[in-house]
Amino acid sequence: MRVLVWGENVHETRDERVRRIYPDGMHEHIAAALRGLVPAADVRTATLQQPEHGLAAEALGGADVLVWWSHIAADDVADEVAERVRREVLGGMGLVVLHSAHLSKPFRLLMGTSCNLRWREDEDRELIWTVDPGHPIARGVPSPISLDRHEMYGEVFDIPAPDELVFISNFSGGEVFRSGCCFRRGAGRIFYFSPGHETVGVYHHPSIQRVLANAVSWAAAPRVELVELRESTWSPSGWYEGART
Amino acid sequence: MRVLVWGENVHETRDERVRRIYPDGMHEHIAAALRGLVPAADVRTATLQQPEHGLAAEALGGADVLVWWSHIAADDVADEVAERVRREVLGGMGLVVLHSAHLSKPFRLLMGTSCNLRWREDEDRELIWTVDPGHPIARGVPSPISLDRHEMYGEVFDIPAPDELVFISNFSGGEVFRSGCCFRRGAGRIFYFSPGHETVGVYHHPSIQRVLANAVSWAAAPRVELVELRESTWSPSGWYEGART
Amino acid sequence: MRVLVWGENVHETRDERVRRIYPDGMHEHIAAALRGLVPAADVRTATLQQPEHGLAAEALGGADVLVWWSHIAADDVADEVAERVRREVLGGMGLVVLHSAHLSKPFRLLMGTSCNLRWREDEDRELIWTVDPGHPIARGVPSPISLDRHEMYGEVFDIPAPDELVFISNFSGGEVFRSGCCFRRGAGRIFYFSPGHETVGVYHHPSIQRVLANAVSWAAAPRVELVELRESTWSPSGWYEGART
Amino acid sequence: MRVLVWGENVHETRDERVRRIYPDGMHEHIAAALRGLVPAADVRTATLQQPEHGLAAEALGGADVLVWWSHIAADDVADEVAERVRREVLGGMGLVVLHSAHLSKPFRLLMGTSCNLRWREDEDRELIWTVDPGHPIARGVPSPISLDRHEMYGEVFDIPAPDELVFISNFSGGEVFRSGCCFRRGAGRIFYFSPGHETVGVYHHPSIQRVLANAVSWAAAPRVELVELRESTWSPSGWYEGART
Repeated sequence: MRVLVWGENVHETRDERVRRIYPDGMHEHIAAALRGLVPAADVRTATLQQPEHGLAAEALGGADVLVWWSHIAADDVADEVAERVRREVLGGMGLVVLHSAHLSKPFRLLMGTSCNLRWREDEDRELIWTVDPGHPIARGVPSPISLDRHEMYGEVFDIPAPDELVFISNFSGGEVFRSGCCFRRGAGRIFYFSPGHETVGVYHHPSIQRVLANAVSWAAAPRVELVELRESTWSPSGWYEGART
Repeated sequence: MRVLVWGENVHETRDERVRRIYPDGMHEHIAAALRGLVPAADVRTATLQQPEHGLAAEALGGADVLVWWSHIAADDVADEVAERVRREVLGGMGLVVLHSAHLSKPFRLLMGTSCNLRWREDEDRELIWTVDPGHPIARGVPSPISLDRHEMYGEVFDIPAPDELVFISNFSGGEVFRSGCCFRRGAGRIFYFSPGHETVGVYHHPSIQRVLANAVSWAAAPRVELVELRESTWSPSGWYEGART
Repeated sequence: MRVLVWGENVHETRDERVRRIYPDGMHEHIAAALRGLVPAADVRTATLQQPEHGLAAEALGGADVLVWWSHIAADDVADEVAERVRREVLGGMGLVVLHSAHLSKPFRLLMGTSCNLRWREDEDRELIWTVDPGHPIARGVPSPISLDRHEMYGEVFDIPAPDELVFISNFSGGEVFRSGCCFRRGAGRIFYFSPGHETVGVYHHPSIQRVLANAVSWAAAPRVELVELRESTWSPSGWYEGART
Repeated sequence: MRVLVWGENVHETRDERVRRIYPDGMHEHIAAALRGLVPAADVRTATLQQPEHGLAAEALGGADVLVWWSHIAADDVADEVAERVRREVLGGMGLVVLHSAHLSKPFRLLMGTSCNLRWREDEDRELIWTVDPGHPIARGVPSPISLDRHEMYGEVFDIPAPDELVFISNFSGGEVFRSGCCFRRGAGRIFYFSPGHETVGVYHHPSIQRVLANAVSWAAAPRVELVELRESTWSPSGWYEGART
């Protein structure tokens, strides 16, 4: 399994608090966690600042799953790169969308809705409950996962109804949020997972790392031929039961 | 629209607290609220203690929507009556299932799962958030509805994934719950709504009453022929565009 | 109910066959059918050739449902108009997407997928089967509707899994197609219905007209406030059961 | 992976045509095919005629997936065994339901609907189209699979909307059918697959065998604790980001 962890890599270079939590950048931190938990995976990283944001056709084509964290620079991603990501997902590449990347271009293109939500940066405690205990992404994950302090993300979250809903969060300020949502688009699988505010060390949490590892395994799938608009020319190759009995 | 409100009518006769809140029984209280909010509706009531629980074939056949509250006596409902309710729902009758009726026989028969959940009778404050603001059941309903004190119902709620998820609740004790869930089964529409513990006057709450009225309007539908197992004998009545242009 | 029927209006002006079937244009023909079947509706029309394609902010803002037929000129629709349609749908406007408008800009923006499919313009007979007999869009519609000759649209149809699947078509050439699909996006309801090739008079068919009328009624809904990204500032207005009992 | 293939084993003992096609019984034939295609699987069989139909608690508890074919003797399955199967599925056991087993007790208990459909035993040719090309059950399966002659199963198929729809069939007589349907119930995964009439050798077809092998792999999952109704007693084990950074 080949995993590509993409990071915006902006807060880490500007904000001392973030650099202290993630000295090598959030993308490198997440990549290291995945290497530990999914030993069979070949995990690489890419960032906004690289040519084509590190998402040239070959890089994307070689990935089974793309993990995406972005926030303040979401709109700096080139439209053609966002569109390339969308096409790769439709062709079967998995996509794991983290936290404020609900507003990233690829996710919004794939959802079709605004992907807006309510938020509050305060002292909320977040509890992440599993609502689908048999789901592979929930395997080995305690319910709830408790985050002592985390940015509040609250409903309404303007997304299409998820194809599978795995986690719902409770915030001590009173809100709720669909914090773990699966979508299938084309041949691709998409998982949105809301934890991950840059100024708290959520990606150090062992259970959050477990969710990421599970999500990557769930989302990985072989590519299939993209569905193209085409004139139909199939011809049935008949099969007669008499021939084989 | 013809609505039949069914009440177990047991707590009201045994528990002074409940009688004080609902002097005429929960079913009569809910029926009165619906009469006020859905003037076009013909709203009747029935209870466990009546012959066939007030759910003889004619009574059910004449209902567009059945509202169901039960708790302690859920298992006292006769199997053949529960099965009759199931068949009517499949044929198009709406069903609004309230609070502890998640364990009622008709709901469990229709869901196929255990319908179990976590619960705690304590001092929790419940906040009921709308997650689908365009849904007809959420129309005119503030988000959140705030209940100062209510029994906690928490995930995992063992139901099939709802066809439409309208409300999610936050409890001050930390839990979350899918508190407003739509299901379509056969030609029938089912709405499960969790508020309604017997010892607090939730059904006096104007916004809760608004949800009930919306739910009844949403669930009402004309009956259709039940799907029967049958040998196919259709014959196409051809239609040629030339004939009409 | 205010309905706006939008037609590309290109084939009608170029192709004698189409003009003979729809002398006033497909949009006027569909509008007239809706006026007959939904008497309470105020039905207007708009076309590609008008300023802003007849879809200025006021026109769209005043519509409860937009019906859209397009084909050869799908890409001539201005991006900002397509985006405006998308926003109105998210805010609650219904959208009925017909036939080759599976490739229209608004539908593709809302779906996020390619919306591609297989096709064949030949002598196929199409049979449109109801798979959800209780659905309001199927009310009064025979199953199957038989079209003696129609363009084949076949799977794979690259759309997100529909929130509700109403019709599936059988083609005599051997293919199948999900020909009636409901989607909910934001507060809006979208219905895709595949019949409607321009060179056969499908929109003269009484049962096809019945589907259009049902779809318009199903998709119409009041606008709700668009979900915006915003800092949360709610404060609970407590409700105490004691106050009302 | 441990697979248990359950066969009713009645037609095989009474009907010379069936015995000729499946000399060792349909269950043994299917088991042999699975052994060939899923080498890592431990595949066993059980039949109606065995004590507890071969489905004692230990046998079921030891299975990751149960494959079920039944027809004429569906109602001879003991209610307590059907209920045991239901509970095991809710706890995580996969279930693959074949052909006329749409009327089997376990499937009907899990669905909650009648599971009725239209049928015709005639000379129809069935074409099974993939509508979800990225689905693991469709991997390596040609689209369409062509069956020269097969019993017609047609819509309306009275099931809850499938959580994932993989295959739709076209019959030369004109009907359509959702022939490959995934459901998630509790922690279990259920796949219904309609091919398999006893008098034609469908389970000799290599592509049908491929679907069965894919389905078994898709449905297998570790057991999880059944969701029980219980008083909530969780206590959060706080996690503070500072502790690890």
